[in-house]
Formats: sequence, C-alpha cells, structure tokens
Amino acid sequence: MNLKDDSINLHRMLKGKIEIQNRVPIENIFAKENSLINLIYTPGVAYVASAIGENKDLAYEFTSKWNNVAIICDGTRVLGLGNIGPDAALPVMEGKSVLFKLLGGINAIPLCIATQDKEEIIKFVKYIQPLFGAINIEDIESPKVLEIVERLKQEISIPVFHDDQHGTAIITLAALINSLKIVGKQLEKIKVLIVGAGSAGYGINKILNSAGCKNTIVVDSNGAIYEGRKDLINNQFKSDIATNSNPRKIAGSLDSVIEGSDVFIGVSGIGNILNNKVIPSMNIDPIVFALSNPYPEILPPSALDAGAKIVATGRSDFPNQVNNAVIFPSVIRSLLDLRVKLLDDNLMVNVAYTIANLVEGQHLKPDYIIPPINDPRILPVVTQTLRNVIQKTVAQHYENKSEANEEERLNIK
Amino acid sequence: MNLKDDSINLHRMLKGKIEIQNRVPIENIFAKENSLINLIYTPGVAYVASAIGENKDLAYEFTSKWNNVAIICDGTRVLGLGNIGPDAALPVMEGKSVLFKLLGGINAIPLCIATQDKEEIIKFVKYIQPLFGAINIEDIESPKVLEIVERLKQEISIPVFHDDQHGTAIITLAALINSLKIVGKQLEKIKVLIVGAGSAGYGINKILNSAGCKNTIVVDSNGAIYEGRKDLINNQFKSDIATNSNPRKIAGSLDSVIEGSDVFIGVSGIGNILNNKVIPSMNIDPIVFALSNPYPEILPPSALDAGAKIVATGRSDFPNQVNNAVIFPSVIRSLLDLRVKLLDDNLMVNVAYTIANLVEGQHLKPDYIIPPINDPRILPVVTQTLRNVIQKTVAQHYENKSEANEEERLNIK
Repeated sequence: MNLKDDSINLHRMLKGKIEIQNRVPIENIFAKENSLINLIYTPGVAYVASAIGENKDLAYEFTSKWNNVAIICDGTRVLGLGNIGPDAALPVMEGKSVLFKLLGGINAIPLCIATQDKEEIIKFVKYIQPLFGAINIEDIESPKVLEIVERLKQEISIPVFHDDQHGTAIITLAALINSLKIVGKQLEKIKVLIVGAGSAGYGINKILNSAGCKNTIVVDSNGAIYEGRKDLINNQFKSDIATNSNPRKIAGSLDSVIEGSDVFIGVSGIGNILNNKVIPSMNIDPIVFALSNPYPEILPPSALDAGAKIVATGRSDFPNQVNNAVIFPSVIRSLLDLRVKLLDDNLMVNVAYTIANLVEGQHLKPDYIIPPINDPRILPVVTQTLRNVIQKTVAQHYENKSEANEEERLNIK
Repeated sequence: MNLKDDSINLHRMLKGKIEIQNRVPIENIFAKENSLINLIYTPGVAYVASAIGENKDLAYEFTSKWNNVAIICDGTRVLGLGNIGPDAALPVMEGKSVLFKLLGGINAIPLCIATQDKEEIIKFVKYIQPLFGAINIEDIESPKVLEIVERLKQEISIPVFHDDQHGTAIITLAALINSLKIVGKQLEKIKVLIVGAGSAGYGINKILNSAGCKNTIVVDSNGAIYEGRKDLINNQFKSDIATNSNPRKIAGSLDSVIEGSDVFIGVSGIGNILNNKVIPSMNIDPIVFALSNPYPEILPPSALDAGAKIVATGRSDFPNQVNNAVIFPSVIRSLLDLRVKLLDDNLMVNVAYTIANLVEGQHLKPDYIIPPINDPRILPVVTQTLRNVIQKTVAQHYENKSEANEEERLNIK
C-alpha cells in the first residue's frame, strides 16, 4: 500500500478520528413527564453544581473528570518532523487520543495550543485542571519541555505524564531487559550508547541509571556528552546527563564512541544517521534500537545485514515496536484509577520489568522482545504493579513520616 | 419526583454525561498486514501532519476541527448561582455539551478554566484555536464577559458565540414576536421592561432596538438605567444601554417603572423579585417572561393569578421554555458548516423571526409561543436563514467593497 496516499485519504474520509458522545440515555430526554433534561441541565443540574461548589472533590464523582486527560502539545517537536506548529500536530494527537480510548478507556482531549512560550504553557495547564484528572505532555521541544514537566509536577495537583520522557524510558528498558536475556548479558556490565539528548535520551539515561546500568554514553549533535563539555553550561538537563553518564569522560562522534558498545539506542529524531559500517565495531551480539519516528536512525534490514543481533524501531510496520504506546494507556489509566501523582524512577523500573515479563521463555526471540501494543494483559499487570509499589511506599511512609507529608507526596484526596 | 436527589443520583450513576469516542474502524487496527494503526498514527499520520503544516486550513478536512466547539467558562456566573468556581460549573457545561451533540451534532468540550482574569481568558481562547472551529462563551460575569466577547470577535479567526447574550436575545425576541401576535400589539409601539443589565439584558435591549422596538427600560440593582445616571461612567455597556433605551430618562425602582409596561422580561439571575401585586399596574394583557434559572423572577402560577396573559420561563418544567438551548445548537452548527464569523444584529433578528414562524396559526396559544428545544425543524430553517443572509451580504458586498475587505469581514477561507 502507499502509506502517504492511504493515510491522507483515510483522514479525509474520517474528518476527525475522535468525537464527543453522550453518556445520557436519550429516550424521554425531552418527555413531558419526568424528562431527563430537567436533571442533566437546568434546573436540576444546579443542585449538582452547588454540591461541587461546596466540595470540589465531588467533580470526580459527578462529572467525567475522573477519566479525562489533556494531551498538551505546542507543535514544536512533532514526531521527528520538528517545529511544524500546533495545527499540524492535531492529527498526531488525535491518533494518540484514539489509542488512549482503545487501550485505556480514557477520554483524551488533544489540546494543541498556539503558544510555544514556557511560562504560558505552564499557566495554560494550571488553568485547565478543573476538567482533567491527569495531564499528558506531548511532542514539546526539549530542554523547554523537561523544565515544564518538573515545574508542573511541583505546581499542579493532578498527575503529569511526559510520554516522550517517561513512556519511552519505560518501554525501552523493558525491551532492553528482554534483549539482554537473549544475548546473555547483564545490565550492570554493558555499555549503552544513547543517541539523542532530548526528552527521550534524558529519560532513558535516567531510568538505565536507576535500573543499575553503570556505563551509558549519550551523544547529541556535538558528539558524546561528558562532564566539563563547554557548551553544556546553559542546559541543566544535559549537565545532569553529563554527571550521570560517560564515567570515563570520552569525547568524540557517534561513529567513534559506538566502538565496543553492547547497545545502540537511537532517539535522535533524525533518520538514517547510523552508518551500518560502524555496527561491526560494536561488542558481540549488537543490540540496535532505532526508535525515531517516522524515520529510524537505521532501517532494520540494513542493521541486520551489518550484524546486529536484535533490532527494534518505534514503528508498527517492523518487528519489535518499541513505542511508548505499549505503556502510556495503562500507566495513565492506573494513575487515574489510583488517584495518585507519584511516578518516580523506582515505579517506572518496576513497570518496565512487568512489561518485559509478559514475553515468556519460549516466546522470547530476537524478533519478539516486547508484547504488542494491543496485548490485553498489559493494563491489569501495570495497574497491579503500580498498586503494589504505592502500597509499599505508603507502608514505609507510615513508618517514616507524618501523615500530613504523605498526603502531599501521594496526593490521595 | 425530587429534583435534587434525582439529579445528584443520576450524576453519580453516570460519572460524566459526555465522553470521547473513536471514529476509527477498530477491526484490523492492529492487524499484521495493512494495519490501520500505521495510517492513523505513526508512521502514516506524519504525512497528514506535514500536509497541514504546509496549509493550516487542511486541519478542517483531516481532523475534527470542523466540528469542535470550546465551551469557555470561568465559573463566575453559573446559572443563577453566582461565582461558584470552574469546578462547580463542570456539570452544567457537560449538560450543555450533551445538548450541543444531541441537537447540533457538535463536539463541545466543556473547558472550565481556573482563571477569572479578563486578559488571561482572552489569551487562553487564542491559544486553543488550533483544535476548534468555534468558541462558545458561557456563564462568565458581566461586564467582563461583554468586553471579552468584543475583543475576541476582533482578535481571533474563528466565530465567537456568547450564548447568554446572543442566544438569549434571539429566543426572547422570537417568543415576544409570537406573544404580540396573540395580544394583537406591535413591537414598534410597546413598552418593554427588562430587569437585569448583565449579558442577557444587554443583548435583549440591543436586539429589541434592532427589531424596531422604540421604548425599552432596563433595570439593574440600582433601578432604571437612564442617560446621565452617575454610577454608569465606569461601565461602557450599561452606558450603551442608557443611550439606547429609556427615551424619557425615567428613574425609579422596578415596582414603579413597571407601570404601563406591555412586557416584563426578567433576566436578573435573582428568583422571586417580581411582586405579583405590581402586575395589574402593567398595560392590558401583560406579557411576563421570568427567564432566570434555576429560580424565575416569579413563578408562572403566581403571575397568571395576578393577571398576566402570557407567561414564560427559562425552565423545561413549565410551559413556554424561553431557553437559548432552543437556538444555540442550530446557530453554531450553521456557523461551523458555513465557515463564517458573521453574527450581527441583522442576522440574529432574522433567526428570531424564523424560529417564531415555526409556531403556525392555530397552534399559537398563550401556553405555546415557541417551539420546544427538540423541534427537528429548527436546525434546517436556521441554517437556511443564515445562508440567505450571508448570500445577501456577500452580494451587496461585491457591489460595495473590494474582495480583500470581504474576506476579512466574512472570514471565508
């Protein structure tokens, strides 16, 4: 099929991939006697409004808030297409919303917004809190987005999920855990090259550290990031990467620092930047995750020809789709259902192992390292994992801290 | 039935009166061959995004934008309940959204926002334009809201509808046109008392002027508004009312200035402020529209006992529901379908006559002056009326003005 024509024709036919539907039984809605309209609209709804006015929390019981997520995108970094603007981001975010509903039963509103100013975006998210139970930050350029996410975690009362950072980190770790089983290596001992120092690269380096990986090198457009590299001073997040990677402070380009790596993880947003000639310089049984969309850093056939043992992309039209769509619906579904804000590295590592374990023994193969996006087992196991971690956290907490602090930390209302 | 308990129980049961649904056929969405996910999400959607990036207008063809309306409410004037906040406004706006879908087929997102600052609200609406084909301003306190609406009409590129002002004005005029047929009076000759000088009072006075009514008096909490009244200086909209009403500059309270009126129109937001003892001081065949919700200025039985010939409220549990829900779905549906911003007094008067004419000869009675909210004839006749007015306007325009100005004025893209 012709991906471009088919996709454009399908979108022209659908004229929107999502819509609002009523949950109200419409029979008798306008009946003369006991019409429903008197209950769902004026005058009856006034009593519901007043009740929430006295106790905001009732909005979770009387409205759709409990199940609403805002997808916030300013169009600055849409897929791998760069700053194409909020209007152009709309079909992507509608696609995201389709997956939210299909895989998580969540109402996701694709709020593509016409401002790219950091402070304005933060204020915007604060303003929309009444309607939403959680926020999903999507395709905003870094480092701006990383600061926005950290600020929002502190400054708003509902959970904030940054799919490009958190979602990609969890699914990448899950795929790596299973790949290492195949090649018989240990996370603690391998060298991982991460190409791309945006949200995904930052999140992957962070979660690999938390999971016990001691030797990561992150490469950006200026080559390997190492502590002391001059151009990092103005970027707190790249400085943070430098502090938490590249222990031997190696400098150099992708082509040189890849030598001796066990794993290549491409989250650069740039297609075809991995020259297959350098793959043989990697350690035995090279693992190549070329995760940029829509154009991977290297196409699977080319990587396999060059000797890669396991190859994954972010795309659904190749084997091993390492795409955050595998996990964001279930993680956010769980955050909504458990009414918690907590989403720390420990929790994310636990979710990664849970996802990895869904591919059992004999099914695990170089071309089947993670479950497909639509594996129905994902949601229940992820929710159970979050519940367990949260119960542990709360338990420890009762031992250590006052109840007041706990409310702050878990935001259980 | 018990309105309060039934309404709260229904809302508790529904947990949200609206939800997002997918318009994508989900069979084969994750199929191995030609899976739809490749078209609606990455990688295929990238082509659709790029196309919109080159031509923003394609968002109307490839996404839900053509059919999306934002309901903007800051919670400052919810129904007649006052400033109960954006969280408390949520069930009301969800009810509104139900009517948008049911009667207009429109996706309305109830954006209850946590800022009550005028400039912040204006900026917020500018930021959300990518997702929406039109804006509906709802239950924001006046005069702030009147300035917001005027500013937005100038400063954004999609239509702005202010239901409390425009919707209420149109339906009230429609109801008055038919009431006057029953009592055999002419709009040009009657005296109309409007109680309440907020969005509704302002809009009703304005549309009555445009329709030819020469003698209106608007009463606010300080009594009748007249040119020169000291406290008007800081309120441009009440000053505008003073200039365009009360030709004989009469001062006084509701109870005194009502004397000799043919029509009472209550849009005060305050229940039971019309003392039925003063109704006999009105002109023969008094017409009483007590439109505040949920508590009318007088209850119909009391008004009828006191000699009112025709009584209407905004409520669905009494005869003659003069509620903007009769017209907002069809007017906004038409604005979306015709892709125009134009919504001037001339257009609104035309729509009012169209609605009035739906109640034909023998059906017209004191307790049946306007069609019910769910009359299926409303949408087609309103759309046709808008189309006619727009075609006339465009025709005149070609005679008078350059095509460039026309694009500005009609915003036909």
